[in-house]
Amino acid sequence: MFIAMNRFRVRKTMEEAFEQRWRSRGSRLHEMAGFAAFHLLRGPESDDHTLYVSHTIWKTQDDFIAWTKSAQFRDAHKDAGTGPSLTIGHPIFEGFESVPMTEIVNQTNAFSD
Amino acid sequence: MFIAMNRFRVRKTMEEAFEQRWRSRGSRLHEMAGFAAFHLLRGPESDDHTLYVSHTIWKTQDDFIAWTKSAQFRDAHKDAGTGPSLTIGHPIFEGFESVPMTEIVNQTNAFSD
Repeated sequence: MFIAMNRFRVRKTMEEAFEQRWRSRGSRLHEMAGFAAFHLLRGPESDDHTLYVSHTIWKTQDDFIAWTKSAQFRDAHKDAGTGPSLTIGHPIFEGFESVPMTEIVNQTNAFSD
Repeated sequence: MFIAMNRFRVRKTMEEAFEQRWRSRGSRLHEMAGFAAFHLLRGPESDDHTLYVSHTIWKTQDDFIAWTKSAQFRDAHKDAGTGPSLTIGHPIFEGFESVPMTEIVNQTNAFSD
C-alpha cells in the first residue's frame, strides 16, 4: 500500500473556499489502476493557517507514479495556480509505503464517514 | 472519518530496529469501538532521519479520544520511553477530520498491501 499526501497550509478565513475548490473539482482517479481511495483531510490549526492534507491510497507506488504521468492527472491539475492564492507557500508532498506487519483492520468501519 | 497520525523522525540506521519494535508490540486496537485500520508508514528520508508515521483510522474523533483514555491505550504504551532512543525528539501528533465531499473509493483496492 502506498499513500500520497500533499500538505497545504491554508490561510485563516480561507478554509471554506479551499474546501469548496476541492469539492468542485472533477476527479478521474477512479479510472486509474491501483487507485483505492481519496480523502481531503482537515488537520490542526496554527496562528496563521489550518493544515489540510490530500490523502490518496494506492495499491503500489508504481500505480501512483503512473497517475502522475497520465492524461487524467493533467486534466485534474489544469486549473492549478489559477484564482486567488488560498495557501501559504506551495504544498509539500510526502509519499509513504506501509511497513509490512500483521495488518490490523476492521473492514466494517473502513471509510465509513 | 478521523485519522490520527504520529510523526516519528527515526535516526538513520535505526529504521529496522524501529520497525521491529512496532512489529513486536501487542495491539488491542481491534477491541475498540470505531476502530477501522492501523498502518505504520515509512516516508521520505532526510540527511539525518527517515520519517515514519503511525496512521490509525477511526470512525469519529470521539472514538479516538475514548481510545486515549482506555486500559488498552495504557497497555499499548506501557513500554514507551524504555530501550535506546531510535528517534530524534518526540513524535509529533496530528489529528485529521475528513472533509465531507463526494467520497471516491475503490473498495477492491482498499487496504490490499
